Amino acid sequence: MATLGLIQYQNASAEVRAVYDDIMATRKTDWINNFWKALAHDLATLRRTWRSIKEIMAPGALDAVTKEMIYLAVSATNQCGYCIASHTAAARKAGMTDTMLAELLAVVGVANETNRLASGYQVEIDERFRTP
Amino acid sequence: MATLGLIQYQNASAEVRAVYDDIMATRKTDWINNFWKALAHDLATLRRTWRSIKEIMAPGALDAVTKEMIYLAVSATNQCGYCIASHTAAARKAGMTDTMLAELLAVVGVANETNRLASGYQVEIDERFRTP
Amino acid sequence: MATLGLIQYQNASAEVRAVYDDIMATRKTDWINNFWKALAHDLATLRRTWRSIKEIMAPGALDAVTKEMIYLAVSATNQCGYCIASHTAAARKAGMTDTMLAELLAVVGVANETNRLASGYQVEIDERFRTP
Amino acid sequence: MATLGLIQYQNASAEVRAVYDDIMATRKTDWINNFWKALAHDLATLRRTWRSIKEIMAPGALDAVTKEMIYLAVSATNQCGYCIASHTAAARKAGMTDTMLAELLAVVGVANETNRLASGYQVEIDERFRTP
Amino acid sequence: MATLGLIQYQNASAEVRAVYDDIMATRKTDWINNFWKALAHDLATLRRTWRSIKEIMAPGALDAVTKEMIYLAVSATNQCGYCIASHTAAARKAGMTDTMLAELLAVVGVANETNRLASGYQVEIDERFRTP
Amino acid sequence: MATLGLIQYQNASAEVRAVYDDIMATRKTDWINNFWKALAHDLATLRRTWRSIKEIMAPGALDAVTKEMIYLAVSATNQCGYCIASHTAAARKAGMTDTMLAELLAVVGVANETNRLASGYQVEIDERFRTP
Repeated sequence: MATLGLIQYQNASAEVRAVYDDIMATRKTDWINNFWKALAHDLATLRRTWRSIKEIMAPGALDAVTKEMIYLAVSATNQCGYCIASHTAAARKAGMTDTMLAELLAVVGVANETNRLASGYQVEIDERFRTP
Repeated sequence: MATLGLIQYQNASAEVRAVYDDIMATRKTDWINNFWKALAHDLATLRRTWRSIKEIMAPGALDAVTKEMIYLAVSATNQCGYCIASHTAAARKAGMTDTMLAELLAVVGVANETNRLASGYQVEIDERFRTP
Repeated sequence: MATLGLIQYQNASAEVRAVYDDIMATRKTDWINNFWKALAHDLATLRRTWRSIKEIMAPGALDAVTKEMIYLAVSATNQCGYCIASHTAAARKAGMTDTMLAELLAVVGVANETNRLASGYQVEIDERFRTP
Repeated sequence: MATLGLIQYQNASAEVRAVYDDIMATRKTDWINNFWKALAHDLATLRRTWRSIKEIMAPGALDAVTKEMIYLAVSATNQCGYCIASHTAAARKAGMTDTMLAELLAVVGVANETNRLASGYQVEIDERFRTP
Repeated sequence: MATLGLIQYQNASAEVRAVYDDIMATRKTDWINNFWKALAHDLATLRRTWRSIKEIMAPGALDAVTKEMIYLAVSATNQCGYCIASHTAAARKAGMTDTMLAELLAVVGVANETNRLASGYQVEIDERFRTP
Repeated sequence: MATLGLIQYQNASAEVRAVYDDIMATRKTDWINNFWKALAHDLATLRRTWRSIKEIMAPGALDAVTKEMIYLAVSATNQCGYCIASHTAAARKAGMTDTMLAELLAVVGVANETNRLASGYQVEIDERFRTP
């Protein structure tokens, strides 16, 4: 199920449970998905990764559903099966409809296409696009 | 400047000019960036690519700035220099602020990180995330 | 099980068996994993790939476990399921502990993150880092 | 030089300077490379990224040079120009010799090759390699 | 079976059936593979993607089997499981033999290797290779 | 110009010169491109890489221009600047015309697009496409 196995709540140390509890409280849910149960074998990585995600994914200048859709766009580009499945679910929960998903994937598709056309044609960056 | 060179407006055929004109009219701008000038060596690709982008990037269930940010997220993940430069400019024009850009890149970064953690730990997809 | 099927030892030609024998002798094991059985349909590729791996993975300035961990880091970055599974096993056999694996994956994760931050922010290479 | 420009020490806020100071102290150096100066436009990302790297790259079960070499292997696989340049320098500073670099790149090359052979031949994961 | 499920011919709208019919007629086959049944949830994407593929994959300066092999080379490089499976079948149908497949994958493998060697060694582009 | 610098013919050892001579004789040319001059710092990698490329790129079931085009398709997908430049030149020398290049890049583009659509929609592999 994972390289080092999955650590279930009932078998977890107090430190791991504290992270699990914070994940469930933050996400207003009563279960933990496999990703965290796999990371739990390395407490430092579990804590650091959760802390980063909690900070990054909190609504700011971008709202929650936009952030989740960007996460999904990256995962689809990288073709990470687990991440596509879990972040499709997360984005839906944050408000993404079927139509929004279809539009998102259409953009992901064409961006992956034109990225290779730009590289393949060896297009030089326009002066106007250069950074200061 | 590009594998087959760049076709400037004044040297373009009537068919290529028609696409250039539509790009400028749709984008409410008076210039054409190098990407299109490089594609113009292949009229079929120029037309098809513009037609696809025009259709996909038009506001729908997702608004223009969200679509441009997804485009940029893909380009940053693929590390396409030309595309990052041009779509950073396009997203700004559509309303992306510096703060939104910074939040977008933070999500792109952590998604690329966790994509590899999920794959590297060989995490199995949770039953709840499976598609019907 | 593989595009062209898997060639088992008992069904293999003398030339393929010679490669299988060398793999088992070099690795001090008595079995052949599917990767080689799939390549065996193309003797030239089987021989060349094994010859390259045997040469590259032999201890040199880097020891065996370091080389296997680098192999695993690449496979996790590329998200190659087969390669992650087989090289996790190989690295363990060469001495990688659970703690080393967790530290390796943490580095892989953050490197994938900062690669995109550097590209996304369009950071120019520092003069001091330029090659001669 | 970077999308949002580079923040030099003399123009940095007290909070940014505190991070710069910790980077220089931890790395026993007297300068800051462009990556951090670009991130400094987003204090949260600057702090979080530095905190993660400081924690992850500290010697543990893996020593400093091994961690830097894994970082470089990921960067070469992703073909991130900035990251290859900066982490080649960092790995050298941690003790990587020219011979070690050449062996590292040889492993990175062959791993990228066999990753595609395994995927292209659609090789199924051996029962022995499956996770519990 | 797919995020939004698969739309079978008998349950499809007239517009979707029209695309399915054109796919079957163009490919001289009597079935539709899952890819199209998944896209059918978004009629615009279904139509646009089929129209693009029909136009791009038609024999031109490159014949059908060469185009299918290039498609497969990209899919193997990206390690897209679905695409490798479907385009291996498509390339075979267009005339790719087992020997051609093996040679194709050998080129894909070594190209992925040398791409990273060129990037990892930070090789500068030769003057002769520069575009006009 | 490269991490470890470039080794020119006049400064090369007899062993390196022997490889350079074979490259020039095989390719019927009188110069060596930077890639080989960078690899020459590691004689084992120089020899192994050249030996592999010489064997793989020799005409077989696929002719020279088809192999070079596949090499270019991989390089464009990976967005390796050096490799795109050098293999565009190599493919042209082997007979690729501007029209063939444009068709090749169109296939590369759409394959990169549909790879992400297939992954993003989580499309299951059709029974008919499964390997034996």
